Parts: sequence; structure tokens; C-alpha cells
Amino acid sequence: MNEVRILEIKKSVYEDNDREADKLRERLHREKVFLLNLMSSPGSGKTSVILRTIEHLGSQLKMGVMEADIDSAVDAETVALTGTKAIQLHTGGMCHLDAGMTESGIDALETTDLDFVILENVGNLVCPAEFDTGASKNVMILSIPEGDDKPLKYPLMFSKVDAIIVNKIDVLPYFNFDIDALRKRVTKLNPDVSIFEVSAKTGEGFEKWADWLKKEIHLWKN
Amino acid sequence: MNEVRILEIKKSVYEDNDREADKLRERLHREKVFLLNLMSSPGSGKTSVILRTIEHLGSQLKMGVMEADIDSAVDAETVALTGTKAIQLHTGGMCHLDAGMTESGIDALETTDLDFVILENVGNLVCPAEFDTGASKNVMILSIPEGDDKPLKYPLMFSKVDAIIVNKIDVLPYFNFDIDALRKRVTKLNPDVSIFEVSAKTGEGFEKWADWLKKEIHLWKN
Repeated sequence: MNEVRILEIKKSVYEDNDREADKLRERLHREKVFLLNLMSSPGSGKTSVILRTIEHLGSQLKMGVMEADIDSAVDAETVALTGTKAIQLHTGGMCHLDAGMTESGIDALETTDLDFVILENVGNLVCPAEFDTGASKNVMILSIPEGDDKPLKYPLMFSKVDAIIVNKIDVLPYFNFDIDALRKRVTKLNPDVSIFEVSAKTGEGFEKWADWLKKEIHLWKN
Repeated sequence: MNEVRILEIKKSVYEDNDREADKLRERLHREKVFLLNLMSSPGSGKTSVILRTIEHLGSQLKMGVMEADIDSAVDAETVALTGTKAIQLHTGGMCHLDAGMTESGIDALETTDLDFVILENVGNLVCPAEFDTGASKNVMILSIPEGDDKPLKYPLMFSKVDAIIVNKIDVLPYFNFDIDALRKRVTKLNPDVSIFEVSAKTGEGFEKWADWLKKEIHLWKN
């Protein structure tokens, strides 16, 4: 097993998270580092999507990954096996990351030589939507087994993100999931959001997602 | 669509949640009402498990259901269609219920004539594990698509519950999920926990779960 660093992050001292988030975003813009905040429920496939993204972009761009979890280092270890710079962030029981906590991770990962960093947020559709991490773009994953009704129950998350990755489309035949119904519910909350249908298991749909991400990184750096 | 009542619950004023939870538990014990706190990730099948439980026990026991969500009333409406007493609790953005919030729900549902009440907690594996709701028993659902590694990442939830329902076993062939590995990980955290393998879609495995629940309700009331 690869040894990965584990950073125990503490609750931020900052009272004004939005201001700290803007400051971190400006810093990353100056340093030409694109930060993607990736959010989802537990088990919807964040780490698998990251591995497929590394497969598509790892040879063209210098990447880093920050894996946030309450406990364990399994995700960072999995990512490190690909040779990608990875760090595990332990949130000490907290269900989200704020900008101060994200900046601690950025400092520990040492990102100045990187083109982009993926922050895998804590598996949760509630709290992470409420805190700006300072990311360049916010993306969520919804997996087929979770159901097409999720925008009704977690509207804040669906309205805040720049893109939605619908993962596990390989198992679509075994679930009652109506993709058109999902698209309608999402568009009502967030008309400009980009939606990508993928399977991290088979690799289907990742070209479009990687193209979107590459374009956004290019825009950020230029 | 059935009209269901929606209760907007507020953050509790109580500082000592554990004490309030014990008080609510004592009250429910006196009133011979069993309260089941059902927790899981979004989309793991809490409402479908509740519907199957109604199917198995609804004719023998007087049931009520409290559906907690950030938004929408779809779950309470679904439950109400079965003729079961149901109420929707809106948590105002909060990612969990505490004992005071649960008691507001109990009062609004009017439970004194009921044998047992299921509280469907907010879909989340982090915050709900941190707050005692005053329930008689705590149960979580883990669904097959979420993966067998979840006890490593959300140890508090897995260590706090009295039973774990492993749902969606009908799709086991399509996922890399090792039930033995899950059992080992769970037993390490929580040696006495009961584990039930079910499919809310096909109905498989619900006899054992209903038997366990009936026994626990009987013990509570006598």
C-alpha cells in the first residue's frame, strides 16, 4: 500500500467564509492553479470518477488530488497508486470543508507546480453545498441508484454546481431512473448547468467530461 | 396526490441534547410508543424500506411515519398513499434532527394511539450519527451501489446503530460489493449489530427484518 500523507484539518478561525473563499480563489487564479470541488452522496463514485479523469488528463496536465473524509486514507491511497500527487484530509467529524480548511490542504499538497487540483469533498449532499471552498468550479456527482428525485430533496446542491456528472449509467436498466425527469428537475433549479452521463466503471462518456474540464482549466489559466 | 402536513421545524433551544433525548425516550416508553430512527445516505432506499415495513407490519401494528427532508414532501406523500399516518418535517437546511426537533414531530403527528413510529432522518451518513434523537432503536441502511468500504469512512454511524439493513441486494451481480468484507468491517466497529440483507424492490429478506422489529417493539411496550 502506498504511504500517503494525512492532514488533520481544524475548524477555520475565519468568521467570514465567503470572503476567505474569494481570497483563496484569487490566490489560485494568480498561481494559475484550477481547483475543482467535487461533491456527492457517499458511494456515488467520486474516487472512481477522479481515477477516470486522471486517465484522460493525467498525461496532459499536472494534477493533484485532496481526499477529504471523516476517517481512513483509502481514497488517497487509491489515487496515489496512479502516481498522482495526493493527500488525505481528515475533517475531524465535520461534514464539509470551508475555505480555510481547503487552503490548509492546498498548502500541504504544495500546488504551485500543478495545473489543477481536485478536492474530493466529504460524501454529503447537504453541508458541502453551504460552504464556498474557494474552488474555481463546483461539480457534483449523482449516481443512477440514488434516484431521479434528488433535486427535489437537495435543491441547494443542485442549484450551486457548474456541472453534474450522472454516474453509473451502466446499471440504468436495473433501476427506475428517468433521465429526462432528472434533466427537467435540474434545469428548473439551475438552467445553465452542464450535465454529463458517464460510467466510471466502463469509461463511457468521459471524453465529453474531460473536454469540458480541459476547456475550463484553459480559461482559468489564460 | 395526497395532501400531507408539512411541519417546519426549528433548531432546538436545548443546550444538552443527550438529556433531552433521554427525556423523550422516557416519555415514549411511558406512552408505549416505539420510535425507530432510520438513517442512510441519500438514495439508499429509506422510503422503499418503510413501504415494505408497512406491508409486513401495518395490519398488525398501528404505525406512523415522520419524513425529514431539507425540502419537498414527496416521501410523506408516498407513505400517506398507503393509508399510514404520515407527516413531512422540513429541517430548514439542517443536516440532522436532534431530540427537540424530533419531539416537535412526535407532537405534531400525535402518536399516543400508535404502536410505533418511524423517523426517516435526513439522507446523510455524518451529522445524524452525532445527534441522539431520543429513538428507541437506531437503524441504518447501506445499499449495495454505495460500496462495502463505507464503514471505513463513516465509522461513527456504523458503530452507533442497533441494526444495519443492506438494501438493493437484487443488483449485487452488477456491483463489486463483498458482503463478507462488509460484515468484517462492521463487526470490528460494532460487534453486536444485527445485519439484514434485503431488496425493497423485490421484497426479499423482509421477513427477518420485520421479525426483529416486532420483537424490539414488543420488548419496548412490555
